[in-house]
Amino acid sequence: MKKFVNLNVKPFNKKITVEKGSNLLSCLIKNNIFITSICGGKGICGKCKIKILKGDFYSEPTDKISDEEKTNNIFLACKTTILSDIEIELLPHTIIPEKIIKDSEKIKDFEHFLINLKNTFPLCPVVKKIFLKLPFPNFDDTLSDYERLKRELEKITKKESFNIDISNLRKLPNILRKSSWEITVSIFENQDKIEIVDIEPKDTLEKNYGVAVDVGTTTISASLVDMNKGEILKKEMTFNKQASFGDDIISRIVYAEREGGLERLHKVVLETINEIIENLSKKSNVLINDIKSVSISGNMTMVHLLLKINPSFLRKEPYIPVANIFPVFKSTEIGIRINPNGIVVVVPGGYPYVGGDITSGILVSGIYKENELSLFVDIGTNGEIVVGNKDFLTCCAASAGPCFEGSGVKNGVRAINGAIQKVIIKNGEIFFETIGKQEPIGICGSGYIELLAELYRNKIIDRNGNFIVENERIVENEGIREFIIYESKDGKRIVITKPDIENLIRAKGAIYSAISTVIKTLGLKVDDIKRFYIAGGFGYHIDIEKSIEIGLFPNLPIERFKFLGNTSLIGAEMFLFSEKFRNLSEEIIKKLTYIDLSRSPIYMEEYLKSLFIPHTDF
Amino acid sequence: MKKFVNLNVKPFNKKITVEKGSNLLSCLIKNNIFITSICGGKGICGKCKIKILKGDFYSEPTDKISDEEKTNNIFLACKTTILSDIEIELLPHTIIPEKIIKDSEKIKDFEHFLINLKNTFPLCPVVKKIFLKLPFPNFDDTLSDYERLKRELEKITKKESFNIDISNLRKLPNILRKSSWEITVSIFENQDKIEIVDIEPKDTLEKNYGVAVDVGTTTISASLVDMNKGEILKKEMTFNKQASFGDDIISRIVYAEREGGLERLHKVVLETINEIIENLSKKSNVLINDIKSVSISGNMTMVHLLLKINPSFLRKEPYIPVANIFPVFKSTEIGIRINPNGIVVVVPGGYPYVGGDITSGILVSGIYKENELSLFVDIGTNGEIVVGNKDFLTCCAASAGPCFEGSGVKNGVRAINGAIQKVIIKNGEIFFETIGKQEPIGICGSGYIELLAELYRNKIIDRNGNFIVENERIVENEGIREFIIYESKDGKRIVITKPDIENLIRAKGAIYSAISTVIKTLGLKVDDIKRFYIAGGFGYHIDIEKSIEIGLFPNLPIERFKFLGNTSLIGAEMFLFSEKFRNLSEEIIKKLTYIDLSRSPIYMEEYLKSLFIPHTDF
Repeated sequence: MKKFVNLNVKPFNKKITVEKGSNLLSCLIKNNIFITSICGGKGICGKCKIKILKGDFYSEPTDKISDEEKTNNIFLACKTTILSDIEIELLPHTIIPEKIIKDSEKIKDFEHFLINLKNTFPLCPVVKKIFLKLPFPNFDDTLSDYERLKRELEKITKKESFNIDISNLRKLPNILRKSSWEITVSIFENQDKIEIVDIEPKDTLEKNYGVAVDVGTTTISASLVDMNKGEILKKEMTFNKQASFGDDIISRIVYAEREGGLERLHKVVLETINEIIENLSKKSNVLINDIKSVSISGNMTMVHLLLKINPSFLRKEPYIPVANIFPVFKSTEIGIRINPNGIVVVVPGGYPYVGGDITSGILVSGIYKENELSLFVDIGTNGEIVVGNKDFLTCCAASAGPCFEGSGVKNGVRAINGAIQKVIIKNGEIFFETIGKQEPIGICGSGYIELLAELYRNKIIDRNGNFIVENERIVENEGIREFIIYESKDGKRIVITKPDIENLIRAKGAIYSAISTVIKTLGLKVDDIKRFYIAGGFGYHIDIEKSIEIGLFPNLPIERFKFLGNTSLIGAEMFLFSEKFRNLSEEIIKKLTYIDLSRSPIYMEEYLKSLFIPHTDF
Repeated sequence: MKKFVNLNVKPFNKKITVEKGSNLLSCLIKNNIFITSICGGKGICGKCKIKILKGDFYSEPTDKISDEEKTNNIFLACKTTILSDIEIELLPHTIIPEKIIKDSEKIKDFEHFLINLKNTFPLCPVVKKIFLKLPFPNFDDTLSDYERLKRELEKITKKESFNIDISNLRKLPNILRKSSWEITVSIFENQDKIEIVDIEPKDTLEKNYGVAVDVGTTTISASLVDMNKGEILKKEMTFNKQASFGDDIISRIVYAEREGGLERLHKVVLETINEIIENLSKKSNVLINDIKSVSISGNMTMVHLLLKINPSFLRKEPYIPVANIFPVFKSTEIGIRINPNGIVVVVPGGYPYVGGDITSGILVSGIYKENELSLFVDIGTNGEIVVGNKDFLTCCAASAGPCFEGSGVKNGVRAINGAIQKVIIKNGEIFFETIGKQEPIGICGSGYIELLAELYRNKIIDRNGNFIVENERIVENEGIREFIIYESKDGKRIVITKPDIENLIRAKGAIYSAISTVIKTLGLKVDDIKRFYIAGGFGYHIDIEKSIEIGLFPNLPIERFKFLGNTSLIGAEMFLFSEKFRNLSEEIIKKLTYIDLSRSPIYMEEYLKSLFIPHTDF
């Protein structure tokens, strides 16, 4: 005999009819109410906590619920059986808003975009492996080992010019004879010359890996890739340890100018990258030795520091980098720990403040080949903007500061598990969502954008970012006013402070005014921008409407905006995968023109206009 | 009032009329009697000792003459004034035979040959310097440092493909700005690509040096050269320290096969070379840092060991070297101490036992372009023979052992000051000449050849090398019979022993039979050889007639023989100087064919026939 009961879910006041004896978590999921659960309802993760307000139920005992929680009627939804009409309340940080459903569509859209990208840039990896069965030498064929190797490589590659370094030459005779003249050669094609990167016994074709690195001022991301398949195996992201030597590019350069400063900055960024590579290698069961190439995409300052090249002249007029197109390095020359014969390639960069990360963005977004006019913006510690189409490309750079990357703001974190990324304020109540649906640990860039918009929408702050209401959430701490977003049981608060808000307004103002300066300098109107590509650590989590509302982006129809995620990292991956991408990157930087905002008569005016929410551009 | 007196010079019994009151040394020189004198008659060197048998004279007191010498009427010729008819006796080791006069003609002939060589191979050094005044960057020309450098280099070199390594890239920004954008770039042209070797502030065009190294099994020679002028500034020669790990190539390879053996052999040869370079640098006041290139000419085993490459397969069938044409190395990769950005180039070698030293010899001798048939022989620890003309080149190698280089024989020394290089035995008396006209310290290769010939001519030894007379100079020492050439006042003897003679017969036999094997294999007769080029440490000091007499060389008219000195070293120099030489060297080794004596049915028969003085080939 079936019997139905009513389930009332707060704070949504959603009323659902469910079968008596049902599992509570299953009922919620069936009705599109998503709460945090990692283990899939096995009672292991202890994440799906809910509060039971009234009704009859049975909840299996579990050590995931403390005695205090039990007293407060908090139980695991996955362990709870409904026995009567029941009323429950979702805990704020466990709620996964409906938006997530939309996000999964965005992810599909993004995956589609990546597939298109692979079609545009066919696989032709920077390091290729070739398996060779060399004919044994005999008295009628006494060619030397190296010439014997070249003879076969010539047949396959149709090239005549080769190079080999001493380490490979040293191991060649033994490897050939131990492996019965069957070897796998890793090669790198540099213009018309073939560099022999590594030689291994027998057939190791299957193991050809690379690491793509996006070296950002604040964060460093890297992907371990399968060079044969053009596939990403694993990604990692971490803070750039250089951050403790200064938040932004200029302070890093100043530090590098000190005695021993360059060496120190070089060392820590190298450490960061080597740790990431080691992690990627361990987590994917890929041997460090099977990683034969690393690509670097980053701004010019980061590239200089990584290569231990004096970056001083990047900040001195007329702002000159050491190179735009970098030569290919051996991994050991730089100190990057992959196969000691591996190579390091750097995505070329057009200008001192528009580096390889933006070359990556231009190529990944595809704006260089479109008929319509597009705008590409990469938001990190610096914000770089490119406007153009298949005929022209113009760029500029603005210093946004690191707050969109979760640095330099009180409870800022980068976009990691536990970071508040979505916020809704409704009737004085705050709802938020964290990445990984975990206990909140801080606020990431997209979270700050939402927070700023919600504070403004709800008239908690005014156009200047001042708190304009009195409210139990607004408190003063050491003379600074702050708004409490979350307070944990043990009293730890996550807040946004008045200086945070000022910082965020300056940051969004820098981006907005840079965009409008480029558009005006080119004699265009905002509406001429038919596609607006957004790149940066935010990924696809940034809320466009709110971004327009706070005056980060200009007021364009929503459908013109497109998120591309970390295009610098995607570019680094494509740089490893595709010869066409590598060749085009050199063409792009020759085509790219630059507007120096610090010398632009328009910029200062635009910037001052942008220091409001949203701005004064109507 | 002039008065003339008679001067009688023993042992020649040469009678000369001289002015009374003349200086004795001057009188001897005026009459073409040369005795040792280094200081030119200033009384400083104390070398021009003579014995006064009778007559009146005045000799200035000098501490160069001991009391014992004074008692024996020994004085310095340069300090002696002739006061009456006088009879003197030259001391054997101070006599410079008339042959020396002929030698000086040979030297002129040789210098002429070197001038011809320079005409054949025009100067185009392996590392060129280019002085550039780069335009200052400004806001209208914000090209990066490296691209700015390339832009100027492109104009001058008309090449488009460049490469720079991390160390030069690192120093580029500071050098450019400290030197007001005036720099000197050292470049190396590798096929169509230009490698930037080094960058220096301001104009350093004048300082472009290189070191050419001949790495022999027993001796290592090197020249410090001025790359701008194609001139040799200084030469040095020393024993290869590897000699203590085995006399010949095979014993070195066997040693290299031991645990740690290769590393040890590599280390000692590197030490030897680095010491030579340091000496050359100090003695010529050339900074190590201004030496930008090193060329290596040597046999394959020596090249393998220097590069720390396993040489084992050179002695295992089918005898395969790691490479014939070697890539270009950075000096630091190999461990050669010149400018740390300097390069190391290796003369390519055709076969495992006919290496770059012989490629050098072929090119230096010019046999590759002659119409007539020539034979080239390089006599070192190995003897390599090439027969050919502009249409073909065939080579072979025989192991002569190190005795012609003064090693492995009792009183053997290399061709240094004090080495007995010429010997005459007449009426039971021995006359000899040492290099530098100094106190004899041992016997060098050419000295042994002369000695063997003189012993045979004077019927002191028979065709088998056995002593066939009893004579006060033939003594037994620890059961071994030896012939005393010189005994110093303190009783130190220089001798040739029975085993020495056997060694020498085997050595000359190896060379002779290799020559006759090649000639016979090619279906030629000895007389078809119209030019016979001799290379090796002997230089132009070897006596052809005596070499034919002992059966080292075949019986050809004397005028067909030509001495070329150390063609391996000359080749290494030319390899630095001339692009044409470098290109031709690669062509030559492709043209060269090889006769493997160990697999030749003719060789063993020829060898057995050659183990006599001179041989059984009549």
